[in-house]
Amino acid sequence: MTSSATLALSIELLQQPSVTPNDHTCQQIIAKRLEKHNFHIENMRFEDVDNIWARRGTTGPVFCFAGHTDVVPTGNVDAWTSAPFNPDIRDGKLYGRGSADMKTAIAAMITATERFVSKYPDHKGSIAYLITSDEEGPAKNGTVKVIETLEKRHEKIDWCLVGEPSSTDRLGDIVKNGRRGSLNAKITIQGKQGHVAYPHLAKNPIHLATSAIDTLCKTTWDQGNEYFPATSFQISNIAAGTGATNVIPDVLDITCNFRYCTEVTADELKARVVDILNANQLDYHIEWNLSGQPFITPVGDLVKATQHAIQKVCGYKTTLSTSGGTSDGRFIAPTGAQVIELGVLNATIHQVNEHVNIADLEPLSAIYEEMLVQLLT
Amino acid sequence: MTSSATLALSIELLQQPSVTPNDHTCQQIIAKRLEKHNFHIENMRFEDVDNIWARRGTTGPVFCFAGHTDVVPTGNVDAWTSAPFNPDIRDGKLYGRGSADMKTAIAAMITATERFVSKYPDHKGSIAYLITSDEEGPAKNGTVKVIETLEKRHEKIDWCLVGEPSSTDRLGDIVKNGRRGSLNAKITIQGKQGHVAYPHLAKNPIHLATSAIDTLCKTTWDQGNEYFPATSFQISNIAAGTGATNVIPDVLDITCNFRYCTEVTADELKARVVDILNANQLDYHIEWNLSGQPFITPVGDLVKATQHAIQKVCGYKTTLSTSGGTSDGRFIAPTGAQVIELGVLNATIHQVNEHVNIADLEPLSAIYEEMLVQLLT
Repeated sequence: MTSSATLALSIELLQQPSVTPNDHTCQQIIAKRLEKHNFHIENMRFEDVDNIWARRGTTGPVFCFAGHTDVVPTGNVDAWTSAPFNPDIRDGKLYGRGSADMKTAIAAMITATERFVSKYPDHKGSIAYLITSDEEGPAKNGTVKVIETLEKRHEKIDWCLVGEPSSTDRLGDIVKNGRRGSLNAKITIQGKQGHVAYPHLAKNPIHLATSAIDTLCKTTWDQGNEYFPATSFQISNIAAGTGATNVIPDVLDITCNFRYCTEVTADELKARVVDILNANQLDYHIEWNLSGQPFITPVGDLVKATQHAIQKVCGYKTTLSTSGGTSDGRFIAPTGAQVIELGVLNATIHQVNEHVNIADLEPLSAIYEEMLVQLLT
Repeated sequence: MTSSATLALSIELLQQPSVTPNDHTCQQIIAKRLEKHNFHIENMRFEDVDNIWARRGTTGPVFCFAGHTDVVPTGNVDAWTSAPFNPDIRDGKLYGRGSADMKTAIAAMITATERFVSKYPDHKGSIAYLITSDEEGPAKNGTVKVIETLEKRHEKIDWCLVGEPSSTDRLGDIVKNGRRGSLNAKITIQGKQGHVAYPHLAKNPIHLATSAIDTLCKTTWDQGNEYFPATSFQISNIAAGTGATNVIPDVLDITCNFRYCTEVTADELKARVVDILNANQLDYHIEWNLSGQPFITPVGDLVKATQHAIQKVCGYKTTLSTSGGTSDGRFIAPTGAQVIELGVLNATIHQVNEHVNIADLEPLSAIYEEMLVQLLT
């Protein structure tokens, strides 16, 4: 019975306590299903991370489903109504850690693929899967490494559907067709320790830095564009002081983050920060960490297929968005692939009692199938 | 032999490991010496702190020697050339914890008193001692409580000589005739936690507070006056953040300190800080702690006697100063007493290998004696 296929596979995956980076056999379950439909499976383990690259077909264009089997920790298990790895159905909802982020989307990909290849065994191009167990962790040995491997052998993805939970109020209302870049900085402002009673003998790094911090917080970095909101800057951590009330501290540590759009580059942001610090004649050190460059998938084949599929299955128009955090799409887009993120509602991700609407599972599978129809037939 | 009397008593006191608040019999040693010269001794123990109030005479004016027998911890004993509580003489210097701050000054007070009362057994007024073992600690059960006791019975000090190490380059070059006030504040700025990717859903307390902090750091609070430098403001601690780079913190904590002069009151400073925070529309909480009001002893009997004594013994003019940290003088001055701080060189206080010049001990005793002559004969 079609209506239960996605639910059944979801439950099977949710029973695995695959807390990042432990895949806990989820990828074996996926591989077994795909092998039956003539997918070629490559297990790509890097250090403690399991990944699979599965492909059906040898020609282009390549449509790739991308996702992750790892989940975030459960937090306090006692706070859950049902055990997080014992999937439970209540009031039309499926509860379990990873139900929204993103095991049900993986199940929907599989069932969509199974129906599609049964109907179109000789479809155009190839269908591929890039599944990692390192999306919720450091993201060092997952999608990044698989993409490196593919790039080395000149294997390209044309269209990529990332199954991250993009929906906000109802299934498919929001599709992510890009992501902002994320640039972190640890800034250390050097001062000189001393006694508060003798400030002329010390250099208070907090006082020295206030103008620069004020400028950083008030700067308009750009105006955004048709796809992106304006670049934002946030200080996430600030710390100075020995704990004593009478000691002027020697250093001030600041951690800050840019979520930036395609109107500016990471190098430009770095240069502007340096200019502000230099203008304030600070003695500083900066450690930069670029965790993801921005990417955008303009309206084209993939976006149109997605819009069409949602309209057909759901009966309403989807909205393109580039807001929110980073995802593994940031590692795939730089290869030239068009990348879209589309999945279930994200209201409960990373929370206690994470759940999805069971009524959304088969429609999501149907949307994925319709995208394959649009692009590969 | 006069030249060794102050040194001998200094060594006796320095052998006691009287780490704050433990007096370790120092006050008994002092009391025994004073009792022989008809001082009436009152032991005033408050909780874990020993104090003595000793007085010779029943009439006014009252000249009081004030000081403390407690010392700061030794730090790493292995870093000392000689054991910190085994006083050692090397190259004309007396080494030991408390040698500069301030057991040698107490010894000099005693020997000065002994000579003076032998020469002038029927001196004017009274000589008193207010000795605590709580100056280097919380300063809650020491001078404060003794003064409270004296105030309750309407016993007044007219002139007070605090033996804190005021000298900088040579004995008596600097005399403290006042101290700045010290006002601490813990300011908590309330924001709203959130994800850095969604700053519009959060309120970053660091960003909200930057203008106010900048204003606090750049404000001129007053211009000082003939006795005091301008009031200074220092932030000693600042902290916000969860440690994660992607979380906007919910609160910002700031600890700051005013060293303020007699041109402004603590209440005025508090009101101006509140005005700055309100002008920036911040949601904040402030916890104030007034650790000492400013005091000044203008040129009068006590200052003139001090200047004269230093000129007579040392052959040069002293300089009046109100700089530096707080001392127990802050608790005595509010009773209306004139207060002066005069002691040995402060170059090594609170440090490893703390020491004094032995050649300074008898001159300091002679200065103290000359002050008694000036004021009580």
